[in-house]
Amino acid sequence: MNYNDLFHIIDDKNRIKLGKDIEDKYLSDALNRNKGEADVLVFPINTDEVSSIMKFAYENNIAVTPRGAGTGLVGATIPTKGGIILDVSLMKNILELDENTLTVTVEPGILLTELQKFVEEKGLFYPPDPGEKNASIGGNISTNAGGMRAVKYGVTRDYVMGLEVVLADGSILNLGGKIIKNSSGLDIKDLIIGSEGTLGIITKAILKLIPKPQKSVSALIPFNSLEEGIDTVIKIIKKNANPTAIEFMEKDVIENAENFLKLKFPCNYGQAYLLLTFDGDETFEIESNYNKVKEVALENNALDFILLDKKEDIERTWKIRGALVTAVEAVSEQEPIDIVVPIDKSADFINYTKVAEKEFGIKISSFGHAGDGNVHLCVIRNGMEESQWNEKSKLLLQALYRKGKELNGLPSGEHGIGLNKRSYFIDVTDEINVEYMMRIKKAFDDKGILNAGKSYSE
Amino acid sequence: MNYNDLFHIIDDKNRIKLGKDIEDKYLSDALNRNKGEADVLVFPINTDEVSSIMKFAYENNIAVTPRGAGTGLVGATIPTKGGIILDVSLMKNILELDENTLTVTVEPGILLTELQKFVEEKGLFYPPDPGEKNASIGGNISTNAGGMRAVKYGVTRDYVMGLEVVLADGSILNLGGKIIKNSSGLDIKDLIIGSEGTLGIITKAILKLIPKPQKSVSALIPFNSLEEGIDTVIKIIKKNANPTAIEFMEKDVIENAENFLKLKFPCNYGQAYLLLTFDGDETFEIESNYNKVKEVALENNALDFILLDKKEDIERTWKIRGALVTAVEAVSEQEPIDIVVPIDKSADFINYTKVAEKEFGIKISSFGHAGDGNVHLCVIRNGMEESQWNEKSKLLLQALYRKGKELNGLPSGEHGIGLNKRSYFIDVTDEINVEYMMRIKKAFDDKGILNAGKSYSE
Repeated sequence: MNYNDLFHIIDDKNRIKLGKDIEDKYLSDALNRNKGEADVLVFPINTDEVSSIMKFAYENNIAVTPRGAGTGLVGATIPTKGGIILDVSLMKNILELDENTLTVTVEPGILLTELQKFVEEKGLFYPPDPGEKNASIGGNISTNAGGMRAVKYGVTRDYVMGLEVVLADGSILNLGGKIIKNSSGLDIKDLIIGSEGTLGIITKAILKLIPKPQKSVSALIPFNSLEEGIDTVIKIIKKNANPTAIEFMEKDVIENAENFLKLKFPCNYGQAYLLLTFDGDETFEIESNYNKVKEVALENNALDFILLDKKEDIERTWKIRGALVTAVEAVSEQEPIDIVVPIDKSADFINYTKVAEKEFGIKISSFGHAGDGNVHLCVIRNGMEESQWNEKSKLLLQALYRKGKELNGLPSGEHGIGLNKRSYFIDVTDEINVEYMMRIKKAFDDKGILNAGKSYSE
Repeated sequence: MNYNDLFHIIDDKNRIKLGKDIEDKYLSDALNRNKGEADVLVFPINTDEVSSIMKFAYENNIAVTPRGAGTGLVGATIPTKGGIILDVSLMKNILELDENTLTVTVEPGILLTELQKFVEEKGLFYPPDPGEKNASIGGNISTNAGGMRAVKYGVTRDYVMGLEVVLADGSILNLGGKIIKNSSGLDIKDLIIGSEGTLGIITKAILKLIPKPQKSVSALIPFNSLEEGIDTVIKIIKKNANPTAIEFMEKDVIENAENFLKLKFPCNYGQAYLLLTFDGDETFEIESNYNKVKEVALENNALDFILLDKKEDIERTWKIRGALVTAVEAVSEQEPIDIVVPIDKSADFINYTKVAEKEFGIKISSFGHAGDGNVHLCVIRNGMEESQWNEKSKLLLQALYRKGKELNGLPSGEHGIGLNKRSYFIDVTDEINVEYMMRIKKAFDDKGILNAGKSYSE
């Protein structure tokens, strides 16, 4: 293939890399485990360039793999069909902060941490809070990223009011806007959200903001067993106590992170913990909410209710929570899983992981978003010999995804499907659902050039 | 066409009506202004029957017009291509109330009022609250109905967790579930929501509930002008006072409704009003919120802040608000419009209606959801001679929709497009958006049998 035309589109040689000049990190994702191949890597700086690149790719039947900050965990950014890697990380401008409509308009390459910092300095708040703060907003939208604060505030989808999207043939689609309600034709915007780069390339997003809550406290609740903790979550939610986050963790996972970070968790008794936050503008409102939770927890076998209202304690505790996966990875290769089940099935699912651990002889750490049924597992290799690991881990993962389905869950709550989970996703998803996803794919990308082979897509 | 096969699918003659036996109301919508034609009207009672009817229609290339309670305002239920009217109003069972996941699973024909009553008796709450309580849930989902409480709680889309949908060829698709996060392939569920029966027939819905707020008060704020009122809305929202609803009304519209209902509005000074509600579990929380609003309002030229905390006052005031359209209709034919604009453009849009009134010589009443930019207009005939009305009202409507677009708004916030607004929608929507909607339509319904000619669909 002759890529000379790309040099006419992008007139800066620093923004095109060919073949062997492409650094390895652009051929993989955050796990850096599998590597693809590509002919060319381009860094467009505006929508017109993205559109021209896609026109060129479409006319010449060239595969395109879009990427942002490359923090994905499911291989969605691994180029599997050669062609072009289209990296939007230079498109990272904040185009407009509109304080009248409480919206911010950004390019896709801006990092979550940059966006959060920018709006919070203005007294505003972008509620979605996925664990990885160095992810790009385009990536967050492409996976419908969730995160810690989803219990109170919802997920990325709930904050995307408008999108500009470049389609497979280079056409530009504008969807939604600074409007709150919409019943005007088909909702293509929500179809793009979570589509992992298979339908189009997000080049602009209008995001909803809220006024920044003035106050926040956390609370740590130890239990003798994870089951008691998870059972209490449902009761907390029914109490209308409006927690921002409800996380669960088991003691051994925390100890691992304590050792890794050389930090002390604020509680050393109990086998499992719920960690909650409450935010708001008024102290009495926050107090009223956490007192409801305290009452419910102590009625349900909680060993304690430890209020964390000092900044230092809150930060240290959430730092440990934030480092759980990294601490596991420091010790061993692991397979990250984020199956989502109905909230009252979380305990059943976690109990099954204990059974599966024994059956397959592979260690599984569990923790995650107790408030929304999004269970995170680390399936840990722990030095298992490669061929055995490859074989056994696949069978274990299949069993876990099938258990998720049996409990009326779905394969991914927030990471997406990408390349790594595709076979498990296909295994547990009704054929007709995959068929209609492919029909939509063909309606948007008849040549199958955009991130084909990822998620549902052939 | 021979419809005998339908009698094998539906073995109860009371549930099939042929040609002339079809009552007029099934050939129209709530406005009862235009009437279509159809060969047969069927009332399936379960998903299998819906699926069999669709298989029959698909094989025989027969147009199908789905309908529920028939309360739509945009002609989406008017059969324009003959064939079958598929009425789901007998499918109105509540299939499950799951208090652990705070979900209710219902058939599409259940009325909003029935659903609200059922869940509220159990201490739960279905927040979407469109004006028309006798609409069916299937219809609410098909138009992504909004309503009064959208400021705090969002719209129907935000409460639809799962759907069962029968597609054009009779296939059955299950989407979503009792799960809170989802990043598992394309989001077909949100594509169905708001699709006005053009992509499939909703046969089951899993809806999200919340605990019922224990307390609610309203507040009425009079201003000397509508502009002052609308300007204050943005300031209220920035104050994080969490109102459930923010409605605006002008004095003349209220007087009309007062006369119609023979009820007295709680305030007779001021030219325009904001009407708010606040709900929650704790009195201090509600008080704190409305006091924030009171402060902002009085700083911004409000003439008063009238707290309505007696049940009788609240009911009477909202009854008047609820009757605004009916009161207009009692006097004259009117064209209902629900253009949505960015919230800070509401005043510009309403000001334009005053200009347009004069320019076209047609009276326009405005009121609506000030908290979300969803402006409701009644374009009122007031005895204008028919040919003149037909010509002038079309030009006025076109001008209003174009003004909405100019202000970065969209044609409908909650009513949908249907048949009546189709030409205006096409006029103000980018061609490429309509093209991709049609591509999706073809992916779902290649023969174009499902509610074709409505909304975006040819």
